[in-house]
Order: sequence, then structure tokens, then C-alpha cells
Amino acid sequence: MKKYSELTKEELQALKKELEAKYREYQAKDLKLNMARGKPCVEQLNLSMGMMDVLCANSDLTCEDGTDCRNYGVLDGIKEAQELLADMMEVPYDQIIIYGNSSLNVMYDTIARSMTHGVMGSTPWAKLDKVKFLCPVPGYDRHFKITEYFGIEMINIPMTKDGPDMDMVEELVASDDSIKGIWCVPKYSNPQGYSYSDLTVRRFARLKPAAKDFRIYWDNAYTIHHLYEDEQDHLVEILAECKRAGNPDLVYKFASTSKISFPGSGIAALASSHNNLDDIKEQLTVQTIGHDKVNQLRHVRFFGDIHGMIEHMKRHADILRPKFEAVIEILQRELGELGIGTWTEPKGGYFISFDSLEGCAKDIVAKCKKAGVIMTSAGATYPYGKDPHDSNIRIAPSYPPLSDLILATELFTLCVKLSSVNKYLSQM
Amino acid sequence: MKKYSELTKEELQALKKELEAKYREYQAKDLKLNMARGKPCVEQLNLSMGMMDVLCANSDLTCEDGTDCRNYGVLDGIKEAQELLADMMEVPYDQIIIYGNSSLNVMYDTIARSMTHGVMGSTPWAKLDKVKFLCPVPGYDRHFKITEYFGIEMINIPMTKDGPDMDMVEELVASDDSIKGIWCVPKYSNPQGYSYSDLTVRRFARLKPAAKDFRIYWDNAYTIHHLYEDEQDHLVEILAECKRAGNPDLVYKFASTSKISFPGSGIAALASSHNNLDDIKEQLTVQTIGHDKVNQLRHVRFFGDIHGMIEHMKRHADILRPKFEAVIEILQRELGELGIGTWTEPKGGYFISFDSLEGCAKDIVAKCKKAGVIMTSAGATYPYGKDPHDSNIRIAPSYPPLSDLILATELFTLCVKLSSVNKYLSQM
Repeated sequence: MKKYSELTKEELQALKKELEAKYREYQAKDLKLNMARGKPCVEQLNLSMGMMDVLCANSDLTCEDGTDCRNYGVLDGIKEAQELLADMMEVPYDQIIIYGNSSLNVMYDTIARSMTHGVMGSTPWAKLDKVKFLCPVPGYDRHFKITEYFGIEMINIPMTKDGPDMDMVEELVASDDSIKGIWCVPKYSNPQGYSYSDLTVRRFARLKPAAKDFRIYWDNAYTIHHLYEDEQDHLVEILAECKRAGNPDLVYKFASTSKISFPGSGIAALASSHNNLDDIKEQLTVQTIGHDKVNQLRHVRFFGDIHGMIEHMKRHADILRPKFEAVIEILQRELGELGIGTWTEPKGGYFISFDSLEGCAKDIVAKCKKAGVIMTSAGATYPYGKDPHDSNIRIAPSYPPLSDLILATELFTLCVKLSSVNKYLSQM
Repeated sequence: MKKYSELTKEELQALKKELEAKYREYQAKDLKLNMARGKPCVEQLNLSMGMMDVLCANSDLTCEDGTDCRNYGVLDGIKEAQELLADMMEVPYDQIIIYGNSSLNVMYDTIARSMTHGVMGSTPWAKLDKVKFLCPVPGYDRHFKITEYFGIEMINIPMTKDGPDMDMVEELVASDDSIKGIWCVPKYSNPQGYSYSDLTVRRFARLKPAAKDFRIYWDNAYTIHHLYEDEQDHLVEILAECKRAGNPDLVYKFASTSKISFPGSGIAALASSHNNLDDIKEQLTVQTIGHDKVNQLRHVRFFGDIHGMIEHMKRHADILRPKFEAVIEILQRELGELGIGTWTEPKGGYFISFDSLEGCAKDIVAKCKKAGVIMTSAGATYPYGKDPHDSNIRIAPSYPPLSDLILATELFTLCVKLSSVNKYLSQM
């Protein structure tokens, strides 16, 4: 098969007819498939059903230190949960706060608090003329929504296989004190599945921000979410690296068990320096009496320790791996030699990132939708929903059953072809 | 026994000696008792242990509408939980959002959002020179901490047995557009246990605030927390009353199951007009993907319906009633005729409010502490922790076992006597 760019007008027109016929066949199937969001599938959820049995009516819901998990109190989480999530996040257990069910909510609160109260004594951002955030792109739409909601100006930073363009990051944060943060998904990034290189992490830890209240928002969402046992990405631990670099307060590290136990019913955590945690607790003590300790205990009793959690994640991987491999196999088979798209092949996380020819992404997603397959909106991976190249599409293979996923991916590749043919034809 | 005010100097001096001797006896007991916070006791917590059994490993965690509670999604709560809490809060189920474990957190978020984003399009409070709140006193310390944290100026409004001084409320909100809200615990108020009269609620619903973004923060914390079956306070439902009065957007109504199921592991809710809920959801959709639906389902399956919840609350009452009665009996017996203190005799809620002679509260609480009994800090029931009369003390009978409670209350009355004697002596 020739590259599409090498086809003549006549060849493209013939191809278009053929593809349109196939597309109509898909439309006739009346599909209702969804590859939009990184939701675990039913089989993954079933893995954690044992969690419903670890606490029962005659259980002792008392912590090792005597805390009755059923009553009020304990602002930063029960010690057992701190230990479990500290191991997961590779940080000391006394540098962690256990929250409710949503790390996104913790990130939101972190920004909201900075708006009204500043960061460790700095001017509240709401009182500043301009606040900016760096946003590695493509990235996670919900990060961008938070900063957009607070009127924070977002600056695109191109992602590379090693992480964000660090030359650009270093230069910007050093020269502009209105830049207060950067959103990072450092491991199996959303959507590309890239993991930051050792050098990238070291450069992050050694940033010299002009703003004292600049922080790295390190969303370690996929810290143990590997697809393979023998090929796993490893990350230099950022908190320790910041400490070594003499920048102990530079980073907020976020994580949760949302894609380990149950999404929406897991536990979230924030790890940071003692200075940052003290600053946060000033707010936290006003905001709540404490988070759900029974659910914290449930997680501790279910997983036992980090080893139990790692074993659990292998079972997740066994379910997810064939799905990722199926998508990549179809992309390779259908688009491999056509020069009309590139994609990532992550070793973990929840997404595959696809880049079409410039200007085709919205059209591809629209075509998929018309044939009954919902993809993440084109542009969603960029601040303000604006992909300057209109080319990035996030593929989420986790949720649909494998047979649906195959069908949906095949349709997707068909839409990529059709859209690309149309683009070339329109240029002739 | 004569009133202390009628005693001669010599009588007071003799009494002082006697009381001090008794006080030293208490000190020798090395007590460690706590009447500070409105925490349920172990027997109350045990009432909800069945909740740990309603969901198990082979349970179907699917809602009636097909929602899998284990996965992401559903921003405003599963319908079953909306129905249950709507019944509890006496509002339509489509005017409610189910949150996480803490209604305090919902109130905090409501203020935080108003600071950064205003209320239904109003100027964000952070951009105003001055924002004020009305605070019925004595009141709930954690309410006051939230407004204090955001730099909101608090104005004391005297409480009466019928609720806040409504003449003062009406006049202030009508004349000052920097007044943006009022904290209310309308039923079995914290700490007095007063319930707002029908007239008070009707006047609230008919307020004519100068500020369009003024809201009533109606913390219905003790809505079904009665002590007696035959003597229960009833409240005119504020949302419906506001609607009837042509002020549908005037109120945010908060509640939770914290003192029904497990404190810290319950579910919280906010009820309001559709306009307010739409405004709130604009934030909520940025803040989180959804709250803990498994825990929502757990509550629904455990209580069944509002009737089950009411029956459950009778069992709470059976545990709390003897404690309230014991405290009131001791106060009556020890202080009844001395003219050195007054107290409330609530029919529900979690507190008894005590008023000492002016200028004695701090001293009484300090004396209790020195003898091993922790009371809520004097002043805590007032904004900024400043009780202008230094007389109000909140008594929380729920947590200690009855025998401890009796001991602690007896010591408390001794400290009241001692402090009062000292006051009278110092004036001679």
C-alpha cells in the first residue's frame, strides 16, 4: 500500500468511494460504543469486590493506635493508610495526607486555596493581575479545566518522549513570576503514556522559578499502573530529588486508588514537604473534621500492604494488556504504511495518543460519532479545548469489551482514512 | 440554699473553703474526661455496624437506573440516595446534590466558591472591599472558623428561644449590601438546642437583602435528631417557604448522616433552588468526577427508606436521652436555686448550653481542665472565640459513658460554684 500523500487524484477519488461504502456499512450496524474516558471495565471492577467483605458487622474498626475509625477526627488520615499510600507514592509516610475519594478534588482545592490564601504566605492569586500555568500538551483535560475555571492563563509546553520541553520550562519559570505552576502526569502520561526521563525529573527538581509560590503539580495518577511485568517505566522520585536539589517545597505530589480499587470510592492522597503540608493543614482544619476513615481502613485491610497492591495491579494489567495490544495492532495493520497518523505504544497508564494529519482530528471524531462510536472530543487534550494542529485524539481502550473495542478501533481507522483522503483531495 | 448573690462575705469565704476542698478531692481522682465535642459514643456507633454487612463481595452494586456504583460518574448523587436524603431534608429529590462525607466541607466549598466566583453571576467576594456575615450567637464554632478563614467580618446576632433576633437580621440585611450570608442551625441549634419558630422561618423566607448574592446558610444538622418521641420540635420547611415568598434562591440547606450512620463515613447533601444548584454544578463539574457512590448505595441499602432512618434515630435517642437527662438533673440539683447559671433543656440535637455569671466561663472551663475534664473552650460559641460576656459554655453529653458524664457534670457544677464565689468575693 502506498502512502496517501503519494496517491494521484484519481486514486484518492476511487479510494474515497470505497471507504465511504465501508463507512455506510458501519453506520448500518447502529453501534453504541464509547472510547472516550479512562474508565475501568466491569472485569477490573470485579477484582476489588472482595473489598466489600473485609469489613463486616462484627469487625473491629479500630486502628493500631486505638483510633475508632467510625468516629470523628484524624485530619490527615489513619496511619495504616498513610503507610500504604506512602509506599505506593514512594514517599515517607509522615509526608502524606490522606483525603477523600478524588485526587482531582485535592488538586482543585490546592488551586482554590492558592487563589484565596496564597502559598506559604504569598499573596493570594486572586489579588494578582495575572496568574499563569504551564501545560504540557497534549495533556489531561480535567487539569486544564481547573486552571481555566480560576481564570489562570495557560501556556502550552510541547511534550516529548522524555517529558515536557525542559528548555522551555526552565526559561519560562525563571523569567516570569506570574507563572505559578505546571501540570504534570509524569508516569504513563495522559494521553501519550510517556514517562519522564531521569534527566527531566532532575531538571524539574532544579527549577529556579521567579515566583516563590511556584509549585510543580505532579499528578502521579498511574504510578503502579503497568501493562507489563518485564517492561515497566521507572521514575526518579520527585520529592526526594527536590530535597537533594535544595528545593524541598517545590512540588505537590498527587495520587489515588481510583484505578486500583473503585473509581469514585477509592482514597486520594497528597505528598509534599512538611512546610507545604503545614500550610495545607491550616486550610484543611477549617474545611473538614476528617475524611472517610472507614474507607481508609477498608483499603488497608483489603490490600494488606504495597505488595498486595502490586499483585492486584497485575490482575488489572492482565485485563488491560490485550485491549491496548488490540488497538495498537489494528492501528498498525490499518494505518501502518499510509503516512496519515502516528500513535504511541505505552507500557502503562490508560491511554493511547493518536495524531492525525493536521486539521483532521475534529472531523475524525465527528465521523466516529455519526457511526456510533464516542471518542474523547478532539482538542480536549489541549488548554481551552484548542489543539492548534487539530490532530491529537485520545484513545481510551479500557472500558469497552474487547470485541467492541476491536470494532470501534476498526471504525476509527476507517474514519482516519476517510478524513485524510478528503484532506488530500481538498488540497488538489 | 440561698442565692449566692445574697450571701455575706463571711458566708462566701466559708463556702469557698468548702468548695476548694471538694475540688482538691476531684483533682486527686486524676480524671480524664471529655465533654468538648458532639461526638457519638461507642454504643451509638454500634447501631450502624450492620451497614458493614449490607454490601458484600457478591452484591450487585447497580442502581435502579443501571448505574454501576463502582465506576466513575454521577455528579449529583445516585437517585436512591437523593430520594433518601430528600425525605430526610423534606425537599424534592431533584433539588438536592449528594456529596462526600462532610457537610462542613460542603459549606466551606460554598463560601470558597463565592469568594472566587461569586453567587449566580455576582462579583466574586474576593474582589470586594468588605464581606460580612451574620452570626447568631451562641453558635457553632466551625461555622465561624470558615468565615474567619476567608476574612469575612462577622456580626453577632443574639439568639432567642424562637431563633435569631429577626428585627436585627431584617434591618441589617436590608441596609447593608456587604452582608452576604447568615449561619443558621435552625433545629436543635448548636449549642442551645433551640428550634426556630414558624414565624422566624417565615421572616427568614421574606428577607429583603440589599445584596443579591445574600444567602441563608441553613445547616439542618439535627433535622431528625430528637431525644423524645412525644415531644419533638417541628420546623417550617425553608425551601418551600422561600418559594412561596417569591424568594426561591435565598437559601442553601445543608445536612448529613454524620450523626446518623458514622461520623466521617456518612453522606452529606445540599438542597437548594434549581438556579442555585445549576450555579453550584458549574463548579462541581470542575472539582470532581463524582462522590463516593458505593457509600451512597450502602446507606440506601442499610436504611431502606426514611422510615428506616427514623426508627434508627429512635435507637440513638434511647442512648442519648439518659445522658441529657442526667446532665440536666445534676445542673438542676446543684445549681437550681443558686442564681449563678442558667441552661437550656433541649428536646434534640447534641448540646446543652450553659450561661454562667458574666466573666466566669473561661475560669470555669480552666478549672474543669485542671481537674481532668475537657469542656469546649469558653468563647468557642462566638465569632473570633470572643464571648463578650464570657459566660457561655457548651456542654456535649453524647460521648462519655454515663458514669463519666455524671462525674464530669458534678465537677463542672463545682467549678461553676467556685468561680461564682470568687467573682462575688472579688466584688466585695
